[in-house]
Amino acid sequence: MASKPSIPKGTRDFLPEQSLRRQFIFDTARSVFQLYGYQPIETPAMENLDTLLGKYGEEGDKLIYKILNNGDFLSKASPEKLTAKDSNALAFEISDRALRYDLTVPFARFVVQNQNELNFPFKRYQIQPVWRADRPQRGRYREFYQCDVDVIGSDSLLNEAELLCIVNDVFTKLGLGDIVIRLNNRKILSGIATSAGLSEYFTDMTVAIDKIDKIGVEGVKEEMIKRGLPMAGVKKALDHISRKGSADTVLRMLAGSLTGAEEAQRGIEEMRKTLKALPPEVRSKVEIDLTLARGLNYYTGAIIEVGHAEFPSSICGGGRYDDLTGIFGLAGMSGVGVSLGADRIYDLMETLGLFPDSLKAASDVLFINFGDAEALSCLKLASELRAEGYSSEVYPDGAKMPKQMKYANAKGFQFVVMIGSDELKDGKATVKNMFTGDQFAVLQRDLCNFIIEKTSES
Amino acid sequence: MASKPSIPKGTRDFLPEQSLRRQFIFDTARSVFQLYGYQPIETPAMENLDTLLGKYGEEGDKLIYKILNNGDFLSKASPEKLTAKDSNALAFEISDRALRYDLTVPFARFVVQNQNELNFPFKRYQIQPVWRADRPQRGRYREFYQCDVDVIGSDSLLNEAELLCIVNDVFTKLGLGDIVIRLNNRKILSGIATSAGLSEYFTDMTVAIDKIDKIGVEGVKEEMIKRGLPMAGVKKALDHISRKGSADTVLRMLAGSLTGAEEAQRGIEEMRKTLKALPPEVRSKVEIDLTLARGLNYYTGAIIEVGHAEFPSSICGGGRYDDLTGIFGLAGMSGVGVSLGADRIYDLMETLGLFPDSLKAASDVLFINFGDAEALSCLKLASELRAEGYSSEVYPDGAKMPKQMKYANAKGFQFVVMIGSDELKDGKATVKNMFTGDQFAVLQRDLCNFIIEKTSES
Repeated sequence: MASKPSIPKGTRDFLPEQSLRRQFIFDTARSVFQLYGYQPIETPAMENLDTLLGKYGEEGDKLIYKILNNGDFLSKASPEKLTAKDSNALAFEISDRALRYDLTVPFARFVVQNQNELNFPFKRYQIQPVWRADRPQRGRYREFYQCDVDVIGSDSLLNEAELLCIVNDVFTKLGLGDIVIRLNNRKILSGIATSAGLSEYFTDMTVAIDKIDKIGVEGVKEEMIKRGLPMAGVKKALDHISRKGSADTVLRMLAGSLTGAEEAQRGIEEMRKTLKALPPEVRSKVEIDLTLARGLNYYTGAIIEVGHAEFPSSICGGGRYDDLTGIFGLAGMSGVGVSLGADRIYDLMETLGLFPDSLKAASDVLFINFGDAEALSCLKLASELRAEGYSSEVYPDGAKMPKQMKYANAKGFQFVVMIGSDELKDGKATVKNMFTGDQFAVLQRDLCNFIIEKTSES
Repeated sequence: MASKPSIPKGTRDFLPEQSLRRQFIFDTARSVFQLYGYQPIETPAMENLDTLLGKYGEEGDKLIYKILNNGDFLSKASPEKLTAKDSNALAFEISDRALRYDLTVPFARFVVQNQNELNFPFKRYQIQPVWRADRPQRGRYREFYQCDVDVIGSDSLLNEAELLCIVNDVFTKLGLGDIVIRLNNRKILSGIATSAGLSEYFTDMTVAIDKIDKIGVEGVKEEMIKRGLPMAGVKKALDHISRKGSADTVLRMLAGSLTGAEEAQRGIEEMRKTLKALPPEVRSKVEIDLTLARGLNYYTGAIIEVGHAEFPSSICGGGRYDDLTGIFGLAGMSGVGVSLGADRIYDLMETLGLFPDSLKAASDVLFINFGDAEALSCLKLASELRAEGYSSEVYPDGAKMPKQMKYANAKGFQFVVMIGSDELKDGKATVKNMFTGDQFAVLQRDLCNFIIEKTSES
């Protein structure tokens, strides 16, 4: 193989600094999830193809990566499909497994399959990659991580409130506290449709409304009319969903104008209860946004989206789905969850320079290698430093000084320790602080304490 | 879908306790790797098929999971191969990508592709799943994690010594310090073959020797003769590799009996240098085992395997490969690395009961839910506790007491806090320590301090 190797389009390698930063995001999220009693689970990357198919709509099905059966996969394939070159039909004969497309469907499958081992309400988080054969573009990858938090087996609205607190805590810990939490409820949207005489056009209505950010109110109106919705209903519905103001004001206005629309009133009541359970610092970040639809087809109650002032698209989203596990034969399990967009959070934190500097310097102390005998002394000292929690390396080769210093600079060591033949004889070491340029002569037996002292100063 | 859902054979779901334990193993390993200056990288699950093919031998190639191309994958397939039902040939026309089979080949590809961004010698670790279409059996899975540590770009034997220290540190931290580190060197084996007149039978010799654990010395002898090796050479080689005793003794005997076998002498010198760089507590765990072969075809120097008294198979293995990146066009990059068997370590720790109890109790405090008003008070207290680092939950529904207590017991909370209507009026709370059965009445405003006090007692 002469040409430079490459990786599949839409996938990425992560270099050390990127990996450490990603790990920092995941660890931060994990620590918050655990404080709220959420527990980790893992599911396999490969699911049976029929577990995934039909769960993401026709477009979604096409984006699922299928895994070729091993061995003589063609032996049982039907000759007609082969000669007809019918890719779609043949796929199911030569592939039994697929890569997971999201974490929600595998979670539903997991709950049904392991229901006897679980303690309900079951609060789980899951941080794993998913794969989609989407067209790659800026910020959209074919392999990316999802970071999902869900409660299943409880329809209490305290769960919605708790998830919003979790989201706020995670973003605050990451330095992204300046979020806007947009909240909607499918029952309100559905009630608006009914009261505007549009219930038979519900999907058309929400598909159009979902585009309001891009095409504005007038654009939505045009689109609805183009889709054959009656003008009077369109106007009425747009009046409702355009309401602005504080959450309390919007809910009061809606409650007044939707009297008699029972489902909408239930949605309004759900929102009120959710808001009431929020501490003031989270509640102040909530906006009611009746234009928020987000794949309405499976949300049944709350719809949640989180944005940040410095980022164009959402960095978190989710909602309530009343029958998550029904597709796998377990009815009556209501769930609510949110998914944090790890890649977008990464990009946003990078833009804002929010990653701690400590993630850059993977190592504290480098011992320059002046030869075999000197290196053996350094090994002992490095080991002492590690016992104190300082990451330490002895340069492995007796390379020329500039090469070793170049390594030290590139890796961002704070201290470089030099023990040459003279120092070896005298039991001494020369320590250079690479951040300040200061240089010190210390006894080897004091080195460990010296480093502890120097690092606790700053 | 009426039947209970399932997952592909050879894959696993991980429940919360399992996930926490796995995370504990990975975090422990990670912390040690970082103390030695090793940095994390991540590579995509999918590699281009031609990156992987031909790197694992013919048998390995068959075990690689290939991913079906998306869209109309048959459109360009050759009609002859379709009608001939030639699965092997067709696979390459309908699949461009595959799931990674190990972490070594992707690492080599990564180093070549990202060479300009890396600081050599490059010390990396990588903890990611790999996939193999192997026949599943006890302890062998189709999806499993590897945990690899490697140095590339340095042929210093300090690296070998460092890796053995790392391995010892990780296992000691996990409570598995009672390891045996078996060490061999390909140069010695090769020198033995030459001096026994078996150099043209080198592969046959090592394949036979590798089976010594299963078939004994006599079995190895028979196998060698069956493979056509001359009797005199076989005896001579077996004399060498059967040497036993302390590392120093074995090396001295070998050096004496292999005078003139230049390559063997170099291997002996490499081992001596490696042993010299080890601190006594690691050196005492090293055994020289000349029967250790481990996929000799790519190791060129040290061969490493780690065993534990309480486990039948190895829990870690690795070695030196002088030209790891050559296959991708970058010559002269010597590497050495080890891979920790995460699944085997898990099984061993479980058998020995080594996982800390703290991994079981995911949560510290549960507030019983006596109704909406009471729950709102609890939410505030739970939030105070979280700020102090205690994981806390308010049961989301006003369910019956036995149901809530059952949840508390199953999840292993240490404390259950009850604030009913009376306590709500009086600003009080009843706290039950679930571990001791003790019950206390405290003021709500003192709850946080009370919990801090009680947990610091134990």
